[in-house]
Amino acid sequence: MQTKIVTIGDEILIGQITDTNSAWLGRRLNAAGIKVAEIISIQDNKEQIKKTLDKALNECEIVLVTGGLGPTKDDITKTCLAELFSCELVRDDKTYRFLETMLKERSIEFNELNRSQASVPSCCTVLPNSNGTAPGMWFERGGHVLVSMPGVPFEMKMLFEEEVLPRLKRYFSLKTIVHKTAITFGLPESILAETIASWENTLPRYIRLAYLPNPNGIRLRLSAYEMDGTAVAAEIDRRFDELQTIIPDYFLGFDDATIESSLAGMLLRHKKTLSVAESCTGGSIAQRFTAMAGASDYFLGGVVSYSNEMKENILHVSHETLVKYGAVSEQVACQMAEGIRRITSSDYSIATTGIAGPTGGTDEKPVGTVWMAIATPEGTFAEKRIFGHLREQNIARATSFATNMLRMHILSSEKKK
Amino acid sequence: MQTKIVTIGDEILIGQITDTNSAWLGRRLNAAGIKVAEIISIQDNKEQIKKTLDKALNECEIVLVTGGLGPTKDDITKTCLAELFSCELVRDDKTYRFLETMLKERSIEFNELNRSQASVPSCCTVLPNSNGTAPGMWFERGGHVLVSMPGVPFEMKMLFEEEVLPRLKRYFSLKTIVHKTAITFGLPESILAETIASWENTLPRYIRLAYLPNPNGIRLRLSAYEMDGTAVAAEIDRRFDELQTIIPDYFLGFDDATIESSLAGMLLRHKKTLSVAESCTGGSIAQRFTAMAGASDYFLGGVVSYSNEMKENILHVSHETLVKYGAVSEQVACQMAEGIRRITSSDYSIATTGIAGPTGGTDEKPVGTVWMAIATPEGTFAEKRIFGHLREQNIARATSFATNMLRMHILSSEKKK
Repeated sequence: MQTKIVTIGDEILIGQITDTNSAWLGRRLNAAGIKVAEIISIQDNKEQIKKTLDKALNECEIVLVTGGLGPTKDDITKTCLAELFSCELVRDDKTYRFLETMLKERSIEFNELNRSQASVPSCCTVLPNSNGTAPGMWFERGGHVLVSMPGVPFEMKMLFEEEVLPRLKRYFSLKTIVHKTAITFGLPESILAETIASWENTLPRYIRLAYLPNPNGIRLRLSAYEMDGTAVAAEIDRRFDELQTIIPDYFLGFDDATIESSLAGMLLRHKKTLSVAESCTGGSIAQRFTAMAGASDYFLGGVVSYSNEMKENILHVSHETLVKYGAVSEQVACQMAEGIRRITSSDYSIATTGIAGPTGGTDEKPVGTVWMAIATPEGTFAEKRIFGHLREQNIARATSFATNMLRMHILSSEKKK
Repeated sequence: MQTKIVTIGDEILIGQITDTNSAWLGRRLNAAGIKVAEIISIQDNKEQIKKTLDKALNECEIVLVTGGLGPTKDDITKTCLAELFSCELVRDDKTYRFLETMLKERSIEFNELNRSQASVPSCCTVLPNSNGTAPGMWFERGGHVLVSMPGVPFEMKMLFEEEVLPRLKRYFSLKTIVHKTAITFGLPESILAETIASWENTLPRYIRLAYLPNPNGIRLRLSAYEMDGTAVAAEIDRRFDELQTIIPDYFLGFDDATIESSLAGMLLRHKKTLSVAESCTGGSIAQRFTAMAGASDYFLGGVVSYSNEMKENILHVSHETLVKYGAVSEQVACQMAEGIRRITSSDYSIATTGIAGPTGGTDEKPVGTVWMAIATPEGTFAEKRIFGHLREQNIARATSFATNMLRMHILSSEKKK
């Protein structure tokens, strides 16, 4: 079954927003056994919209459209759909009453622009959007389906889960796709590929391997299409079990696993707590842990000690050490880690201090130099890396590297037991 | 001039990665006067790759391709390009020597997979990639250009800036596109639209207005295509000056302006400093400020006081207050803000405490309840909001709202002077 995702909006083509909806839809559709053949982003242009949607609907059983449904003049998707399906825009009473109530609750005036959100092409089935003003619309033509959804990500997601996916499941008989992805961190792609080459070569032909590198590690995805789902899933699990014995230290887990989720799992399993002291990562480590639900079970908190005064006054880094070795040094990283561990009485701590850039580097300590330390019941350990010259990347890499130091430490402690 | 961006990789279609390259390319191309007509993402499938690229090259003067150039088996873009342009893969000696040196420096073995990265279609111009193992490739056909670049974002970006864009500028004579975007925060789209309707109606016909809502505010973009660049840019500036007088409090700035960059500008202008005390936002506020270069000029640091103990021990929130009112209360938010301001001796501070979810809510304080406070030389102020039930969104909204509280406060202090 062919499926196409079409996202509409000049803001995507000029790069003012990144289209995150398509990736999310791709993930959800795959999980449901619907394979996406193509994602296409086009402009707020009537001819291009009509032509692209018409072609997509001829070629594909399912066409999912996002964007262009706002109340303002540049949003023309609805008009295009009415013309494409040769019908009039009419007021949908249920949507009208919903909008009236919602805007009243939020103390927003129900003006002409908002009222226009209740107009829909007469030939569509309206899909109620409980989180916003633009409803979804379901169209059918010759056994093919086109669904129009708002572009605001959380509105689109709720509408898809609540209204679109259940209808697609009923309308089409779906084939099984099995995907599973192992997350690795710490081996460059070429070395990883060489290390697991013999494992890769023994994979059965119906299972495909893909390498997906990103700054947070290299992901290995095994996929099988249109097979018996249960048997294939079991076979993929067995293959990944083998893989894990080949690269145990570099194996973070599956699917959405990250260095921090893997470490969080270890801390919960051992009933241990964590605190952080961040200089160059500026809150990024804390932010990654607290983004995960349930963080308060092991994460006590942290200090972002951007100034030397905070390093001294709150973390009790010694003034002499700061003067003698400088803020970006092994000694300061260790004292930061030990300081926050002592203050919070946490079992473990992570600390970073470095020069994120773009300025602030010296010959001895160029931009990208970062000292990272962990304080543990087994002692304090520090490592230095020189990452690069881009601020954003230096912060991201130091965050991953420092977190991984603690993960590797606990992993090796587990093995010793 | 028609331009198409083609991204290749199953990982995009199944949503395992979000395509951020296209938005970045769209932005850079637009700034250079090249308009993107379409962005299309396709699978690692030989027939689909060849068919899509052939069609794109027929229709468009410029085709930019990213992805599928890795050293592993699932990366087939290079083979497809060789077939599409009917030529052989041959070793490029310069790339070969570069790879040999780079991998030696990084202590990575120069194995068969890495050596294969030096093979390129004989009919292309090789564009050296100084940040990775896959070089870029420039093809020409009937006056049209196809450029293949690696999919790893920072490699692609450097290659595009250093090699691709200068060549495109030389090869084509480019027309001018002027875009400028004003960033607003604090007014819902429909109210904003109504407030500025008369301004919108007086815009000349050659200037287009677009509304781009996102969680960090609504952006208003004015665009003019194929006009005299200097005159149009001046006219757009004049229109935005008018707009700023209509919605002064909601106007953050232009283009990449954010609440935090706007606030940072104020702090630098007044030579004032900032500290933060975060509970439910978990480091997100600190992270947003420290992500900006030069943050150390005004940002002293912060405390992520996830546990009550940290609120008491480091921020000196009173134990009685915590017991009497609970951690999520006006009193605790104010004491957190005052505590971090006192400890760091900063001029201003921002504090948050709330229930990010998905669990932890009560009837009285449902998930999404957040108290936010600012401590200033003019006093301490707090506000409560109930955002919603999604953790990620609650964190993002509380981060924006709390930061905006301080921005609005300083703005109103400025007016009083």
